[in-house]
Amino acid sequence: MFRDESEFVRWLQTHAPRGDPRLKLGIGDDAALVEVRRGHELILTTDMSIEEVHFSPRLHAPRSVGHRALARSLSDIAAMGGTPRYALVSLALSRSAPRAWVDAFYKGLLALAQAFKVSLIGGDTAVVPGPTMIDVLVAGEVPRGSALRRSGARPGELLYVSGRLGWSALGLRLLKSQPPGRTLSHVASVCTLGTSRLLLTEAACAAAAIQAHLYPQPQCALGRYLAARRLTTAMIDLSDGLSTDLNRLCEASGVGARVWTERLPHPYLEDPHDSLQLALDGGEDYQLLFTVDPRQASRLPARFRGIPLRHIGEITRAKKVVLHQATGREETLQPRGYDHFRKCKENES
Amino acid sequence: MFRDESEFVRWLQTHAPRGDPRLKLGIGDDAALVEVRRGHELILTTDMSIEEVHFSPRLHAPRSVGHRALARSLSDIAAMGGTPRYALVSLALSRSAPRAWVDAFYKGLLALAQAFKVSLIGGDTAVVPGPTMIDVLVAGEVPRGSALRRSGARPGELLYVSGRLGWSALGLRLLKSQPPGRTLSHVASVCTLGTSRLLLTEAACAAAAIQAHLYPQPQCALGRYLAARRLTTAMIDLSDGLSTDLNRLCEASGVGARVWTERLPHPYLEDPHDSLQLALDGGEDYQLLFTVDPRQASRLPARFRGIPLRHIGEITRAKKVVLHQATGREETLQPRGYDHFRKCKENES
Repeated sequence: MFRDESEFVRWLQTHAPRGDPRLKLGIGDDAALVEVRRGHELILTTDMSIEEVHFSPRLHAPRSVGHRALARSLSDIAAMGGTPRYALVSLALSRSAPRAWVDAFYKGLLALAQAFKVSLIGGDTAVVPGPTMIDVLVAGEVPRGSALRRSGARPGELLYVSGRLGWSALGLRLLKSQPPGRTLSHVASVCTLGTSRLLLTEAACAAAAIQAHLYPQPQCALGRYLAARRLTTAMIDLSDGLSTDLNRLCEASGVGARVWTERLPHPYLEDPHDSLQLALDGGEDYQLLFTVDPRQASRLPARFRGIPLRHIGEITRAKKVVLHQATGREETLQPRGYDHFRKCKENES
Repeated sequence: MFRDESEFVRWLQTHAPRGDPRLKLGIGDDAALVEVRRGHELILTTDMSIEEVHFSPRLHAPRSVGHRALARSLSDIAAMGGTPRYALVSLALSRSAPRAWVDAFYKGLLALAQAFKVSLIGGDTAVVPGPTMIDVLVAGEVPRGSALRRSGARPGELLYVSGRLGWSALGLRLLKSQPPGRTLSHVASVCTLGTSRLLLTEAACAAAAIQAHLYPQPQCALGRYLAARRLTTAMIDLSDGLSTDLNRLCEASGVGARVWTERLPHPYLEDPHDSLQLALDGGEDYQLLFTVDPRQASRLPARFRGIPLRHIGEITRAKKVVLHQATGREETLQPRGYDHFRKCKENES
């Protein structure tokens, strides 16, 4: 491990790339100092990643933990239609974590930061007797007045989602079922993926799902595109599962929604109910869920940089979220994604 | 505890006062949205408070935990000469913490926030199997180009400190020695405080020390005053103890320093060595340590809003920090304040 905090700070300074002229003061002083572009508003968001809650050392390599910890906050900036600029990382490191864990954790985090041109400018560090906890703050920018919120959806608007749903949850399931020490090609034999519309082999599907779970890609470019062209009225990122996040968007907007199950871009497993459940409650897909005025819908491309934008439902006046099945049956869609307080109650009872 | 996350978010929204016209979007969306004043730079800082590292439920009431968690970050903004504006609070709450703990924690945090006109605008929450951990981010502003850094000290400059040193550490010691259930008046009988220059009784000294520990006051107004009048060349806040933080300031500036022990504003205990140790290594005083060009020294008041500004030493060319005793003897001042990595090594050996 590092000898003392100054050694750690110097190590971080050499690893965190600079070069941003609006970064006045980075790691190593009491606080970081940056300039926000004229005509822009500042977006601030913070997300925790906790050992045995958000990640497990048995399943998640430290490089993935670093990537995922930053991805969560970048995805929040994407949901506002903003551009992420700066990150601060608070790391409460378990006493049992080896130095190599810290190296790989920052390697994963900084690789994603570099891909999004985000500068690591500060944070805090502690060594703790309990599990490792990470809190990542990201500061982003958005042109004044163009930020997207959860609260703008109106009845009659169309509901869209980017990319695929449920793949991260499928990846997690595969990782859990993987016998220790087996390589990825063995994973396919323990999962039942059925025929995929993508015409991938089972092994390739499994690899894609695991990749989606370990290294999710926040949709910042898409969020910025939608905000800049004023194509959407409300937006949220899918971190806790469609069932939870759609209910949040509807609650904030004071509306309801109807989702058509046959339009959901879920993985194809042998059990169709299981496939649907992954897409609805899986979480950690970090795709964008957004609403579009029907008069603007023709301006929306079918794909953005290769990512499909799918029309999966509509916004309704009735203040509840319903799932419309191919048979015509409708049922209420309850939020069943991860909720810390609900989870706590379940553990108690 | 709260039923689910939406109930918690609604509870927070009703408790977090608003009214700042530059706050565009607070708690409850994917991220917070604020405007930074024209001609100002943005200061970002984050600090963790961890159960059994930074606080202990036996010694610290939840209201004090909330106050101290925010005070740490406000003090960093003070050290830059800035004005704190917005706070984001990430709370990883131990499963065993009762609902009343959360209420009192936020009560303490929000009371300090209100006193400093800081808006709580976001954060993250989780319920965890381990100890409670809090990470507080504060965003502040400073007029462009006027932020103070650690790195501006030059040989020949004068070293100053605000307020008193070692009182927080004394307060912690008193709290630890206090038999459970005893009131404050009993504390005085278990401590040996000797004659205080303030002519306080022992009981009053003890109460003041405990107050300094549980409810420290960040020196934001002083920091802003010094920065606005360009009275100082370098500044740092005293969070980890004078010995550690002065070494940090000197390292950042590429200089050394000489501190005169008889000028240190320490508590007066029976053992003078013990008194001095508290002032040098105690930490958590959240006073400001700063350097002044000798030609500017006459412009510096002896007190700012009742807080003494004391000339305790000088900046030297030799790159080490020495302690000059009344006898004329000099010794190197090693950083002996709290260091997480060093602490970890000590526990291992």
